[in-house]
Amino acid sequence: MTAEHINPFLLSAVEVFSAMLDCELTRGTPSLNVAFQPAHEVSGIIGLSGKASGTVVVSVDREVALGVTEKMLGERPDSLNADVMDAIGEITNMIAGRAKTGLAHLEMSLALPTVITGNDHVIRFGSLAKTISIPYSCAWGDLTVEVGLIEEDAPAPAKQPAMTGA
Amino acid sequence: MTAEHINPFLLSAVEVFSAMLDCELTRGTPSLNVAFQPAHEVSGIIGLSGKASGTVVVSVDREVALGVTEKMLGERPDSLNADVMDAIGEITNMIAGRAKTGLAHLEMSLALPTVITGNDHVIRFGSLAKTISIPYSCAWGDLTVEVGLIEEDAPAPAKQPAMTGA
Repeated sequence: MTAEHINPFLLSAVEVFSAMLDCELTRGTPSLNVAFQPAHEVSGIIGLSGKASGTVVVSVDREVALGVTEKMLGERPDSLNADVMDAIGEITNMIAGRAKTGLAHLEMSLALPTVITGNDHVIRFGSLAKTISIPYSCAWGDLTVEVGLIEEDAPAPAKQPAMTGA
Repeated sequence: MTAEHINPFLLSAVEVFSAMLDCELTRGTPSLNVAFQPAHEVSGIIGLSGKASGTVVVSVDREVALGVTEKMLGERPDSLNADVMDAIGEITNMIAGRAKTGLAHLEMSLALPTVITGNDHVIRFGSLAKTISIPYSCAWGDLTVEVGLIEEDAPAPAKQPAMTGA
């Protein structure tokens, strides 16, 4: 993963949080190739495919999830309900979409976001992906944006099996 | 989500488990559009994008995760370690890849699989996705394949924001 690939992701979360949520993020020190990542309580996940294959994970703590939802819907949810999960899915979609426009030459398109909740969930990218994990903090709490990418000239994450039993 | 879209997913898990793992799956009754889905302990997630955008989640209980890994590596892991997560990521990739070949007209490509572990994790697709959840059982235990798809002529899951602050 080169600087050219990383930069759009460094910027996109800051830009989306500022423009959409009026919330300023402070960036911590990014880590490269962290294989095993304990997540915050709510994680949005979205796939990207095209000339590179990738996945973006936006993992936020409970207070950030509630703050984002309150800002988007004008009302504070009293639990991590469906509205919260939809809001985090939408923010994940926006962050990945914004970064994608900075990587136009990779001609990637977005898959559908899914959102995970769970106190102790852990997210792992496949061993062959090059990953970057970027921590942020804001007035609501902490979040992390993690990106895994495999470029077309790199080995594929797993071979499509030659089916004999089908 | 039409029968034409569902059928490749009904078949792909059965075929991959049979051909790759020598394990016969028994299919339960599929449910359509289940919004909120408690997952088994290990879930592989992979995005698909092209003329439709989608996500496939393969969620397996601990014994299935250990059984799959033992079959693939020839040795039983003693915990849900990195090998187990890689094995479930690979199986998820195979199931989605096999279904994709049955949906060639949608010209979808695969994103990168990620794998989630956590006792109480819950996975939610966005509100606009049409979803199907297919339960299976096998000698090792239970698993579920969930698919969410949005076709190109359907409304997008979230608009890319018009950024003013960037």
